[in-house]
Amino acid sequence: MTEKSPETKVAEAQTAALELAKLSDERRSAAIVSIADAIEDRSDEILAANETDVREAEALLEDGEYTQALVDRLKLSPSKLESIAEMVRSVAEQDDPLGATQTARRLDEGLELYKRTVPIGVIGSIFESRPDALVQIAALSLKSGNSVILKGGSEASESNRILFEIIREATADVPTGWAQLIEARADVDALLEMDDSIDLLMPRGSSGFVSYIQDNTSIPVLGHTEGICHVYVDEDADQSMAVDIAYDAKVQYPAVCNAVETLLVHEAVAESFLPEMADRYAEAGVELRGDDRAREIVDMAPATDDDWASEYGDLILSIKVVDSLESALAHITTYGSKHTESIVTDDSDRADEFMRSLDSASVFHNASTRFADGYRFGLGAEVGISTGKIHARGPVGLEGLTTYQYYLEGDGHRVATYAGEDAKPFLHEEIEDN
Amino acid sequence: MTEKSPETKVAEAQTAALELAKLSDERRSAAIVSIADAIEDRSDEILAANETDVREAEALLEDGEYTQALVDRLKLSPSKLESIAEMVRSVAEQDDPLGATQTARRLDEGLELYKRTVPIGVIGSIFESRPDALVQIAALSLKSGNSVILKGGSEASESNRILFEIIREATADVPTGWAQLIEARADVDALLEMDDSIDLLMPRGSSGFVSYIQDNTSIPVLGHTEGICHVYVDEDADQSMAVDIAYDAKVQYPAVCNAVETLLVHEAVAESFLPEMADRYAEAGVELRGDDRAREIVDMAPATDDDWASEYGDLILSIKVVDSLESALAHITTYGSKHTESIVTDDSDRADEFMRSLDSASVFHNASTRFADGYRFGLGAEVGISTGKIHARGPVGLEGLTTYQYYLEGDGHRVATYAGEDAKPFLHEEIEDN
Repeated sequence: MTEKSPETKVAEAQTAALELAKLSDERRSAAIVSIADAIEDRSDEILAANETDVREAEALLEDGEYTQALVDRLKLSPSKLESIAEMVRSVAEQDDPLGATQTARRLDEGLELYKRTVPIGVIGSIFESRPDALVQIAALSLKSGNSVILKGGSEASESNRILFEIIREATADVPTGWAQLIEARADVDALLEMDDSIDLLMPRGSSGFVSYIQDNTSIPVLGHTEGICHVYVDEDADQSMAVDIAYDAKVQYPAVCNAVETLLVHEAVAESFLPEMADRYAEAGVELRGDDRAREIVDMAPATDDDWASEYGDLILSIKVVDSLESALAHITTYGSKHTESIVTDDSDRADEFMRSLDSASVFHNASTRFADGYRFGLGAEVGISTGKIHARGPVGLEGLTTYQYYLEGDGHRVATYAGEDAKPFLHEEIEDN
Repeated sequence: MTEKSPETKVAEAQTAALELAKLSDERRSAAIVSIADAIEDRSDEILAANETDVREAEALLEDGEYTQALVDRLKLSPSKLESIAEMVRSVAEQDDPLGATQTARRLDEGLELYKRTVPIGVIGSIFESRPDALVQIAALSLKSGNSVILKGGSEASESNRILFEIIREATADVPTGWAQLIEARADVDALLEMDDSIDLLMPRGSSGFVSYIQDNTSIPVLGHTEGICHVYVDEDADQSMAVDIAYDAKVQYPAVCNAVETLLVHEAVAESFLPEMADRYAEAGVELRGDDRAREIVDMAPATDDDWASEYGDLILSIKVVDSLESALAHITTYGSKHTESIVTDDSDRADEFMRSLDSASVFHNASTRFADGYRFGLGAEVGISTGKIHARGPVGLEGLTTYQYYLEGDGHRVATYAGEDAKPFLHEEIEDN
C-alpha cells in the first residue's frame, strides 16, 4: 500500500470529525475501552517494538545524540503498559464533555438560543518521545469527539506505529479516519499550512520547537515554550515548610516544565532559611547560582541575567534575595513564563496579593509547583500544559478539547421585526430546566 | 507632547492590565458609567469632530475611494450618541464576568484547587469605520478587566480621537494606561510583532485585512475573514415562512457578515418556491445568480464556482437546487465559512440532522441568519464575531474576553507524597458551596 499524503490523511480526519461529533458518548467510550483491552491483549507486540526503539536509542547514547533521560522516558514495561491501559479506561469513565448546555436563553416567544459544547474538529498533536503520550492524546481526543493527527518523536517510531495500529483496529466501530499517524518530519511542515482543515495544534517539545511551530502557522497553537516557575519564600513563611516545598519543586522531577527554576527569598528570612535550604539541596546534588545577597549568606556561583530567564530542566537552581513582595512580583513579571508560581507564607493577605497580582496559569499558596499537572488537578489526564491565555490554560484535559456552538430554534422569526422604528423588544430571559 | 511609540503604549497597557485585574466590579462599572455620562455631556464636541470626518469622506466619494455605505456608517447624530451612551450603560449593568469559580476541587485534605475567571490581559482591537465600535469595544474591555489597544479606521480619525480622549478622562479613577489609541497604519505592523505583550488580537474589517493579520503574527487572532452564510429550504418547509426568512436574511441589511449569500432549495419544492421567492427579491432589487436547475425555473444569470465562494455583502444572491439534505450539507461544508447556516423545515428530525452535521459557529432552525449578533443573542454587546473554533465562537461578548486561572491553596503539600511506591491517593472531590 502506498503511504497516504498528509493532505489525504487530514482530509480523512476532517470527514471523520463531522461524523464523530454526532456519535453518542456510549459509542465513543466503548471504543476507548476497546483500546485499553487491545493494549493488554497485544502487550507482547508493543514491548517487542519498544525494545527495538530502546536498542536503537541506546546505540546513540555514546554519540551524545540521546540522553539517558530520553531512553528512560522511551522505555515501556509490562507494568507501564498496565498503567497506560488503566489511564485509558479512566478517560472513558469521565463525564461526557459534549452536548452540555452552557446557556439556554429565550430571545422572544418561540425563539430559543442554546449554547452547547461540541468538539473542536481536527487536532494536530506533535509530541516528544514518551509512547504513552500517543495513547493518552488519542484517548482524550476520541472522548471529546475530535479527530487527531498524531506525530511522535522519531526515536519512538516502532512503538508509536504498533500503538497506532492497535488503536485504529480497536476503534473500527467509530468513523475510520478519526486518528491519523504522521511519521516524517517534513510532513509537519505540510500540516502547518493546512489552516483550512486543522483547527488546533498542540506541540509538546523543546522551547525552540514550539516557537518554530508558532512562528510558521496561522493555525491556533496551544502549548508552552518555557516553564520558568518560581517559589517565593515570604518573610512570614514557615521555614521548615518552605524548605520542603522548595526541595520538592526542584528535586522531585527536575526535567519537567513545572519544576521550579528560581527561588526568591525575602531578606528578613534569608539568613536563617538559605543555609538550611542549601544543605538540603546539597544532599540531592543541586547546583545553586545566586545574586550577590544570596552569595553573602551561602557560597554559590554567581547568577547572571541569563539564569533568571533559564529553564534548566535539571538539578540547577537560581536564587535571589528580595526586599519585598513587590520586588518578588516584579521579578516574576519580568522573567516568568506565566506557567506556575508559588508563595510560601502564613500571611493570607500577602498570599492573596501574590496570587491576584500574577497572570500565570497556575498560582499556588503553600504548595509545590509540581502539582501543576492534569492528573493531579483531577482532570483525568492532559494533552499538554498551556502558557497562552486563550482557550485553555495550564494543564489541558477534556474540557480544553471542546468548544461550543450556538443553536437557535425559531418559528419563522425575522430580524426586521426587531429593527427600525417599531422594533419589537427582545425578551432575553433564561430558560430554566433545559 | 511627543507621541508615544506603540511599544510604550503596549507596555503601559500591560502594567495597567495587572492592576485592572485586581479592581472590583464596582470600580470598573462606575468608570464605564462615567464614560456614558461624558459622552452625553460632551456630545457637541463629538459631533463637531465627526462632521469633519464625514465632510472629508464625502469629498472622497466622487473618486470612488469611499462608498456611500461607508459614509453612512461613519456618521453620528444626537440620537445615535444617545443610543451609544445607553449601550455603554447596559455593559456596566451586566453581571461581573470575573472571579466566577468554574471548578472547586479538594485534591487532598488541606489542598484545594479553584479555577476562576480572570481577564485575558492586553487586547489589540483593529476595527473599521464606525466610531461606535471604539466605544463598545472599550466598554466591554474595561468591564472584563482587560487593557485594550484601539486602532480605528483612518476615515474616522477625528471622531475616534475625541471619543478616546473622553474615555480616558472619564476613567481617571482606574489605572491609566488601560486604553491606548493607535492611529498610524504602520503601527499595526509593530503590534503584530508584540507576541510577548499582547494576548489577543481582534481585527474587524475586510477578509483580506483579517487574513493579513492572521498571516503576519503569532499572537492569537479572533475574528472572521468571511461570512458566507446559507439558508436551506427543505422539502418540508412552510413556503411562506421560507420566503420571509430568506428575504430577511438577504435584504434586511445585506452589507453585514451574517446576511445570507447562498440559498439552497430542495428539488421537491423548487418549482413552487422559487418563482414566489424571485418576485419578492425583485421588489428589493436583489440580483439572482443560479445553477442550471434554478435557471430552468426562474430566469437569472448563471452562477459559477466563484459565486458559491463569494461573500457579496450586497443585494446579490446565489441559488442552487439540491436533491437532498445531504447535498445541501455537502455544499455548505465545501463552500461555507463556518459562520451561520439556517434550515427552514417542519421536520424536526431533519432540522436536528442539519444542525448536528455542521460545524458552523451558529446553526439555526426556522430563523433568519441575521440573528447571529451579540445584542440579539442577549450578550449585551459584542466585540466581534469569530468563525474560528478556539476560545470564543460566533458573537463574542464579555465572556469571550475572559480566561481562567488555577488557584491552589495548600499547607506545605509536596508532590513526593503522591508519587512512587507508597503514593498517597488523591481525593479529587468537588467542594460544595465555594
